[in-house]
Amino acid sequence: MTNIRDLAKMAGVSVTTVSRVINNHPYVSEEKKNAVLKAIQDSNYHKNINAVHLSRGKTLLMGVVLPYSDHPYFALLLKGIAKQALEHNYKLVLFQTDYMKSRELEALDMLKHKQIDSLVICSRSCHVSTIEDHLQYGPIVLCENMKGKELSTTFINHYKTFVNALEYLYQKGHRNIGYCIGRKTGTNSRQRELAYSNFVNKYQLEYNQEYIIDQCLYFEDGEKVLKRILGMTNTPSALIVTNDQVAAGIVTACQSLDISIPKQLAIIGFDNQPIARMMNITSFELPLEEMGENMFLQAVNAEVTHKEFSVQFIERGTV
Amino acid sequence: MTNIRDLAKMAGVSVTTVSRVINNHPYVSEEKKNAVLKAIQDSNYHKNINAVHLSRGKTLLMGVVLPYSDHPYFALLLKGIAKQALEHNYKLVLFQTDYMKSRELEALDMLKHKQIDSLVICSRSCHVSTIEDHLQYGPIVLCENMKGKELSTTFINHYKTFVNALEYLYQKGHRNIGYCIGRKTGTNSRQRELAYSNFVNKYQLEYNQEYIIDQCLYFEDGEKVLKRILGMTNTPSALIVTNDQVAAGIVTACQSLDISIPKQLAIIGFDNQPIARMMNITSFELPLEEMGENMFLQAVNAEVTHKEFSVQFIERGTV
Repeated sequence: MTNIRDLAKMAGVSVTTVSRVINNHPYVSEEKKNAVLKAIQDSNYHKNINAVHLSRGKTLLMGVVLPYSDHPYFALLLKGIAKQALEHNYKLVLFQTDYMKSRELEALDMLKHKQIDSLVICSRSCHVSTIEDHLQYGPIVLCENMKGKELSTTFINHYKTFVNALEYLYQKGHRNIGYCIGRKTGTNSRQRELAYSNFVNKYQLEYNQEYIIDQCLYFEDGEKVLKRILGMTNTPSALIVTNDQVAAGIVTACQSLDISIPKQLAIIGFDNQPIARMMNITSFELPLEEMGENMFLQAVNAEVTHKEFSVQFIERGTV
Repeated sequence: MTNIRDLAKMAGVSVTTVSRVINNHPYVSEEKKNAVLKAIQDSNYHKNINAVHLSRGKTLLMGVVLPYSDHPYFALLLKGIAKQALEHNYKLVLFQTDYMKSRELEALDMLKHKQIDSLVICSRSCHVSTIEDHLQYGPIVLCENMKGKELSTTFINHYKTFVNALEYLYQKGHRNIGYCIGRKTGTNSRQRELAYSNFVNKYQLEYNQEYIIDQCLYFEDGEKVLKRILGMTNTPSALIVTNDQVAAGIVTACQSLDISIPKQLAIIGFDNQPIARMMNITSFELPLEEMGENMFLQAVNAEVTHKEFSVQFIERGTV
């Protein structure tokens, strides 16, 4: 690779002169300028943009941390982020973590080393204090309710939404209600767990650990969920499923076993993806793409903001 | 941001000395070394990795061009690429193009300017000659059959697969066969079109332009497809659908209109995603994740290779 020193040699000028020509600096004689331009042409030299970024202190790269890129929830957040990235001439550096802490730390490290300007964390494994330690290096945005912290956040009220879902099912006569989530340890799932515990206490229902089913991510997991609840001594009569794909998978698995929905099993999905509308699944609509767009905008702004998005309940045929 | 010049000033040494300390170069006195290390600590300076990359000529960033990140076909390719990226300590820079040429050119430009080391193009809008012009800047991998070209490729034989699907439907008695694709202009779709034309000629069937339905990408597009074929004067009796999500959407739309599958409409899907298995949809299995992994490996290798992946036909209940 030709460097600036080689160009100077070829053109018979100083390194400073080459640098001036490259950066359109005035005070370079026509003669020298032409010599440098010829050297650039002859050598097929391209200004190394890393060097330009270095001088500007900006990379126009934004990191995006997400556990899975092939999961509709995260794919839609990413779509929103990518949409704004396009408009703002930013590129995205993807960290598909599979919830590995080491992978998240790599993203934080890239921020520390100025390889990216900012970071959007769609879902995290690291402790929030680890993330806060990196705020000195650039903006970090989280997709969870962390009001008051020194990081920008975009979120929905998972506690309230879950309470609404539980109360709706209770009004419809359900007393054995289970729920399906991605993982138990996330902030959002801890809010759901709290809502569930409070609900169970309020109506003096039995708290059945079995009713909380995790690792529910994809359509095909619906089969596994149905198998699992059919194996329980006290089968739940209703399920809140935090992902429409899984809800659709459960509905499909029920159809092939002639289990009647909602009569034998009521289902509430989440996100209101197109599959929910087409399969007539009751669901909560989450504006995921807009949330992604908002996270991008928060990440390019130095100001710390918190934005709650509202959720809409869509009544259909599965309850 | 503190730079190397600031550090030199703070430590009372030359810029060269600071650079030597940062790069663990020998021949620096203990005294000067300690002064520099103290300045680094005091200023909260972090070695700018862009500068390190600059000196090494490597970024460990790989560009990935894909039209949509929320589409299962591309999400699975991306999953495979990301899996290998993780193992090889590469980060991915995402270019979600929506098939805009300008966006693809940006990716090629980043390769040219050494901001990324290599580029995987999952689907392109640019002419192949534009892409070939950029091969001098780093490896580029395409996901289409381009044997003989100077770029590495990973692909399946879309022509042969389409012929097999058409012949299978013909043997089952179908004479009015339509098909659904993402877009008409892609290399893969041109191969399918060729297979279709040859098939129609071979059996002296009518070539019906209406039977080629494009813009079929998501589950919800199934509804649109069904509406469209129901509006035709000569409704096709079978559809080849190049995406299981759309196939599942058509099956679901048929169910809600009491259209019997395969009696009134036969369907062959593509990719053999889990939704195809659960909804008992006949499909062709494409090893998308493996293909993604292979593209990553081709992109980190200087050697130009071509790898064809084989496709497996999965007979189920929709034909």
